[in-house]
Amino acid sequence: MTLDPVHVAGAGMIRFGKYPREVTLETMGASAARQAMTDAGVGPADIEALYVGHVFGGPVAGQRIGARIGLAGKPVSNHENYCSSGATALREAWIAVGAGLYDLVLVLGVEKMTDRIKGGVQPDAGDLDAASGFIFAAGHALSARRYIADYGATREQIAMVAVKNHAHSVMNPYAHYQKPVSLADVLTARPIAEPLGLLDCSPISDGAAAVVVASQAGLRRLGVASAPKVAGCGLVSGTVQTGLGDVNEEDVSRRAGEEAYRVSGIGADEIDLVEMHDCFTIAEIVRLEGLGVLPRGEGARLTEAGHTSLGGRLPVNPSGGLLSRGHPVGATGVAQICELFWQLTDRAGGRQVEGARTGLAYCKGGSVSGTDGASVTTVIMTR
Amino acid sequence: MTLDPVHVAGAGMIRFGKYPREVTLETMGASAARQAMTDAGVGPADIEALYVGHVFGGPVAGQRIGARIGLAGKPVSNHENYCSSGATALREAWIAVGAGLYDLVLVLGVEKMTDRIKGGVQPDAGDLDAASGFIFAAGHALSARRYIADYGATREQIAMVAVKNHAHSVMNPYAHYQKPVSLADVLTARPIAEPLGLLDCSPISDGAAAVVVASQAGLRRLGVASAPKVAGCGLVSGTVQTGLGDVNEEDVSRRAGEEAYRVSGIGADEIDLVEMHDCFTIAEIVRLEGLGVLPRGEGARLTEAGHTSLGGRLPVNPSGGLLSRGHPVGATGVAQICELFWQLTDRAGGRQVEGARTGLAYCKGGSVSGTDGASVTTVIMTR
Repeated sequence: MTLDPVHVAGAGMIRFGKYPREVTLETMGASAARQAMTDAGVGPADIEALYVGHVFGGPVAGQRIGARIGLAGKPVSNHENYCSSGATALREAWIAVGAGLYDLVLVLGVEKMTDRIKGGVQPDAGDLDAASGFIFAAGHALSARRYIADYGATREQIAMVAVKNHAHSVMNPYAHYQKPVSLADVLTARPIAEPLGLLDCSPISDGAAAVVVASQAGLRRLGVASAPKVAGCGLVSGTVQTGLGDVNEEDVSRRAGEEAYRVSGIGADEIDLVEMHDCFTIAEIVRLEGLGVLPRGEGARLTEAGHTSLGGRLPVNPSGGLLSRGHPVGATGVAQICELFWQLTDRAGGRQVEGARTGLAYCKGGSVSGTDGASVTTVIMTR
Repeated sequence: MTLDPVHVAGAGMIRFGKYPREVTLETMGASAARQAMTDAGVGPADIEALYVGHVFGGPVAGQRIGARIGLAGKPVSNHENYCSSGATALREAWIAVGAGLYDLVLVLGVEKMTDRIKGGVQPDAGDLDAASGFIFAAGHALSARRYIADYGATREQIAMVAVKNHAHSVMNPYAHYQKPVSLADVLTARPIAEPLGLLDCSPISDGAAAVVVASQAGLRRLGVASAPKVAGCGLVSGTVQTGLGDVNEEDVSRRAGEEAYRVSGIGADEIDLVEMHDCFTIAEIVRLEGLGVLPRGEGARLTEAGHTSLGGRLPVNPSGGLLSRGHPVGATGVAQICELFWQLTDRAGGRQVEGARTGLAYCKGGSVSGTDGASVTTVIMTR
């Protein structure tokens, strides 16, 4: 593999949350994209291609947005990998820029969830697991039960993930929620799938996030001496699971991590912060262990001990994560890249991870019956 | 741009047509994919990534198919660019293989249309043009009327596109329709949008098509000395059209062609055959002119003269095209690549274009209000 260096030169987001019907997918996406271009100091004429991640935006959503922001005429590709759609778009942009095809491209993740989803995300037609009751929340509840049984972890330790991520998001002006929650709040919230309650689950959010991705020639064109680098991306799908496996084994996360470590030449022990796909509290814990950035079985205890809090050894989700920043599915992967960019340029304000030099973003998207997940992406960025 | 040479090493398709409900997207996609792998002499273990184009398959469709054909665990990306979805997936694979990221990947286009669409394809919500009655068929009817008025072309010449493409498909075992139609059949078919009738329109089809894309190292691994090359791909979106333009100007096709000519170093005058997105008869004519492979205003006359028939100077749609091979939207772009591959390896049987050394495939997908199209892809292949 011979990719040239690839950088992030600017980022833009709209605040995640619930927007009224008249705030469309197109206006949300255009707003984030304009902010990213302004942040990078680049005009639409200089952007050579648009990579868009979304799930529910309908055909050619990226082109509808591109036509509003001066990108009409340019190459546009729309990428769907469920919750890792935005990260998949980022990865394709990384390949195209790294291959020398473009010097400046825009990557956009966007989703208008609240128009179409009431309550939780509905299972897809043909999802046999979900049809038999094994919906996402049930799966994560089983994961929590098993984790508690296997490692002597406590319900309170798992709930601390939500307390931590909500505390972080208070300092993130782009977060859906910006209020702290107490341990008691999490423990007494409406039950969803025991032992998990409402505050163990990420919300249904609308949102959009965008970054400008640049080659070294692209940076020169912007008059920028340096910018955070996309050191490596991983993309894997789940393997077929036979027999009664361990629900917390996280083979798919391990493989996604290993690919990013291999491609970037950066090891798990060199990561300074993680933006993690915490669609549920327990998911943050087991996926960090799967990635190899926390020892197996110790994630819950380390969460309680503050290891993954701001100021801890490995801050996780300084943005607030999916639990509190929110989770507009196609936008999430790009929002994570925005956060890594701000962290690696010392622009994260009150949630800044001091001295952060490397960050890892992880997304897991969708399910395929009989496998341990549909799509997992990992992105490692460095200063 | 520094892409390494990229080749097509094998192709597979299922016959396009109307399949019953129990023939699912997954079974169709898996069948085409297996045939392509068998054709290339490659097993699932050797395939490094899966690129999938579809529009209506729902989230992570590519992963659902991949898990059935031994590709579980591999990177999978799903690409949506309406009718050019499959071609966009091919283009991303071309970039990744050309960048040295992979040596052997599978590209799949798949669509199960008949489960969800009755009559014609419905306009998208938010499509202002379609909501006011300017649906695809109406647009092409206006194009035909204007073409006749501007160039003195006849209704019969335009209908000859359907006669030609149905005649070609008689020799294509993968085509939805394999029966000739007469000029009288086309002229007396049920009116859709005057002057166009039912046989001027591509049908609603189900289908799947796949190719194995290989680097030179990939070809060596397969023990193959040579294989057709993907000489260049183009991807553009439509530009904003202001004022009362000429509906047959085809600026978007011109730009898509120019990108492919520039990237491949192969000029319009060097193309030996074209697989054209003939969603309507008139579309074949005006897009060939837009691409610069036929002179402006002469496409209808040249169709009547046999210029674009098998045996003519520039055979167009030897496969039967969308009009007769059928049009499962996400599959069409990959089906065109299959046809170019078979033509460039002298495996096209009765529809072989003698001596063909270069082929061009063109797809146009979707619409964005105020622009001249959402997405156009072009692919040039050489022996």
